[in-house]
Amino acid sequence: MKQIEGGVTAAKGFQAAGVEAGIKYQNRRDMALIYSTRPCAAAGTFTSNVVKAAPVLWDKELVENSPFVQAVIINSGIANACTGKQGMDCCKTESRCAGELLGIPESAVLVASTGVIGMQIPTERITDGIRKLAAAKAEGPEAGLDAAKAIMTTDTVPKQIAVEVELDGKTVTIGGMCKGSGMIHPNMCTMLGFLTTDAAISKEMLRRALRTDVADSFNMISVDGDTSTNDTLLILANGLAGNREITAEGEDYDRFCEALHFVTVYLARKMAGDGEGATALFETKVIGAASREDARTLAKSVICSSLTKAAIFGHDANWGRILCALGYSGAQFDPENVDLYFQSTGGSIHIYGNGTACDYSEEEATRILSAPEVTVLVDMHMGEAQATAWGCDLSYDYVKINADYRS
Amino acid sequence: MKQIEGGVTAAKGFQAAGVEAGIKYQNRRDMALIYSTRPCAAAGTFTSNVVKAAPVLWDKELVENSPFVQAVIINSGIANACTGKQGMDCCKTESRCAGELLGIPESAVLVASTGVIGMQIPTERITDGIRKLAAAKAEGPEAGLDAAKAIMTTDTVPKQIAVEVELDGKTVTIGGMCKGSGMIHPNMCTMLGFLTTDAAISKEMLRRALRTDVADSFNMISVDGDTSTNDTLLILANGLAGNREITAEGEDYDRFCEALHFVTVYLARKMAGDGEGATALFETKVIGAASREDARTLAKSVICSSLTKAAIFGHDANWGRILCALGYSGAQFDPENVDLYFQSTGGSIHIYGNGTACDYSEEEATRILSAPEVTVLVDMHMGEAQATAWGCDLSYDYVKINADYRS
Repeated sequence: MKQIEGGVTAAKGFQAAGVEAGIKYQNRRDMALIYSTRPCAAAGTFTSNVVKAAPVLWDKELVENSPFVQAVIINSGIANACTGKQGMDCCKTESRCAGELLGIPESAVLVASTGVIGMQIPTERITDGIRKLAAAKAEGPEAGLDAAKAIMTTDTVPKQIAVEVELDGKTVTIGGMCKGSGMIHPNMCTMLGFLTTDAAISKEMLRRALRTDVADSFNMISVDGDTSTNDTLLILANGLAGNREITAEGEDYDRFCEALHFVTVYLARKMAGDGEGATALFETKVIGAASREDARTLAKSVICSSLTKAAIFGHDANWGRILCALGYSGAQFDPENVDLYFQSTGGSIHIYGNGTACDYSEEEATRILSAPEVTVLVDMHMGEAQATAWGCDLSYDYVKINADYRS
Repeated sequence: MKQIEGGVTAAKGFQAAGVEAGIKYQNRRDMALIYSTRPCAAAGTFTSNVVKAAPVLWDKELVENSPFVQAVIINSGIANACTGKQGMDCCKTESRCAGELLGIPESAVLVASTGVIGMQIPTERITDGIRKLAAAKAEGPEAGLDAAKAIMTTDTVPKQIAVEVELDGKTVTIGGMCKGSGMIHPNMCTMLGFLTTDAAISKEMLRRALRTDVADSFNMISVDGDTSTNDTLLILANGLAGNREITAEGEDYDRFCEALHFVTVYLARKMAGDGEGATALFETKVIGAASREDARTLAKSVICSSLTKAAIFGHDANWGRILCALGYSGAQFDPENVDLYFQSTGGSIHIYGNGTACDYSEEEATRILSAPEVTVLVDMHMGEAQATAWGCDLSYDYVKINADYRS
């Protein structure tokens, strides 16, 4: 497996576009299209929030029941959440309009939105946008980057990646893009992720691969603990790589999953590190846990702790907060038997063990915590299970972005 | 029932003191004593964190097994958490020293600490402090206020209250004090609460009253979602009011519980409104829920949402975040059937209903949200259950207090 240039257009047969549609703001790209020249198997995972945005309801139904998928229309600015029947009608309009322009069934068009909750999307602007997208769609890295830029909100950088992997003697490509936390008119941390691949893989195996993967990639990140109404991760597979179709577990499936995981972890880390107001990526790796579930629970509890996040922002080796967050996570353990380490490009130190603080240098700890990517390594000494979670620090800018934007 | 002057010394036979012991900082009161001239029945509730501070382990054992309790020694500055055997030895030294000076068994002395995790308490300073406390202990409101001040950390005001209630023709008094979130050298939001009463009530009924009460008072507040290693709530009852001892449920017990609840909710609200960096008390009242448990879960989810808290700080009617927080709480409901209202001394508006935004004035909403106490009323339209939770807004100062204190 190797990383290559590009994003959602890296795999064979995938085109993309990103245009200005003025959905809520002028003079910025706010609509994107992903289009496959061939029908795709599709799978998706969606927000667990009881309050689900219209595009989430729309896509869940389509991913489940549509015989194939060929396009995704994405807009930023307005989330199309809490918008009632009018919101569902908007999804229908989008799919119908895109279907007509692209010459594919409306049931082959997925939609996704991110932005302010409660506002209605102006129908005319979105259909105008779709017309622009259909005209602009193209192959190649530039078109992929345009799309990655169009789904950005308060993201400071576009987030995309592509990898190649040999399956059955054929080169299979997986590409992806995502957006993270925050909006110009912020409303919530909405995660949208879109993956494309030319692998030949059955819908069932694609779904299994995605569901298994997210538990250790996108579901292990948090910026502020608020699970959006719009979270959506989609994968489209068009089979153009020409590999023998993956229809069961085995070597090909494993290699596909490995490449997929490389892509999803890359994007998840990018999203966490570019969280609203973030100055650092904050990684917590738990090893030696009694079970995988415990390891995940413990790691997520640490990266979600406001006090720990604020300490990371201050480059402060306040390890008590980490132990505290492990303690209230819900997992059972013996605090006397835990080891804590801080690690970064600045070095590595053992900070807590045998039930008390280690004899460490505060200066060294501060140096380690001043790196742009900081890892807390936690050894529970209870078993073999491990998990990693990714978050970011809590800064003044997080408050500014989410409170002050009207003033 | 009526509210009266004072705090922990309001009930008959209770004395208190607050002194400077230099535990971690100079020139500030950092040790407090509560003392009863008569043996007390005692009950306590303690942190659910797996990582429990030494005083928590000490008190749990004593409250369970000691025949009676007569004093509580409290210090701020150092939490005596993650301190291993030396930490437990410190608790023992405190109890023995206080027992000798006060002429009571060491098993009648409870201890509580709040402050930095991981540091050891200097034994000499704490025994010197106990000597000062024993010499300074006195009846009356001034001594109670001294104690309430001595347990403050980044609290901006001392928090105390007392009420009188007639039981069995006798005047029974319940007083209390607590400290909230933050420290001068902050480490975590530690809640300590101490209640005293001259009611005659059996240990079993006292325990039942306290356990029932906290579910709707102290357990319904949150400043930052971080459950401390030191959280402790204690109640001491010395029987000096002369009422017929409460040994079973009935009218006297109900009246006692009602007065207790008035005291605990008062203190809980004070604690939430004085959370680290807070500019407003943020109350969420859920009515019409399917069950009490659901109502509590929903209300707490809203007051814990970082995005909602930041919006309250910005006086921004960002109701989508509230609906989102209800949605990810874990409780099931139909978003189309929820009503949201904002309420404060500035007025009341209906902001969401029938699945979409109501036609409200942003200006009016901002005025309502600019009050020092803001309430979100949520009607689930599913049943009769209700619950209220209290938090605070998320401000720049929260980040400052928890990140910047070393610079």
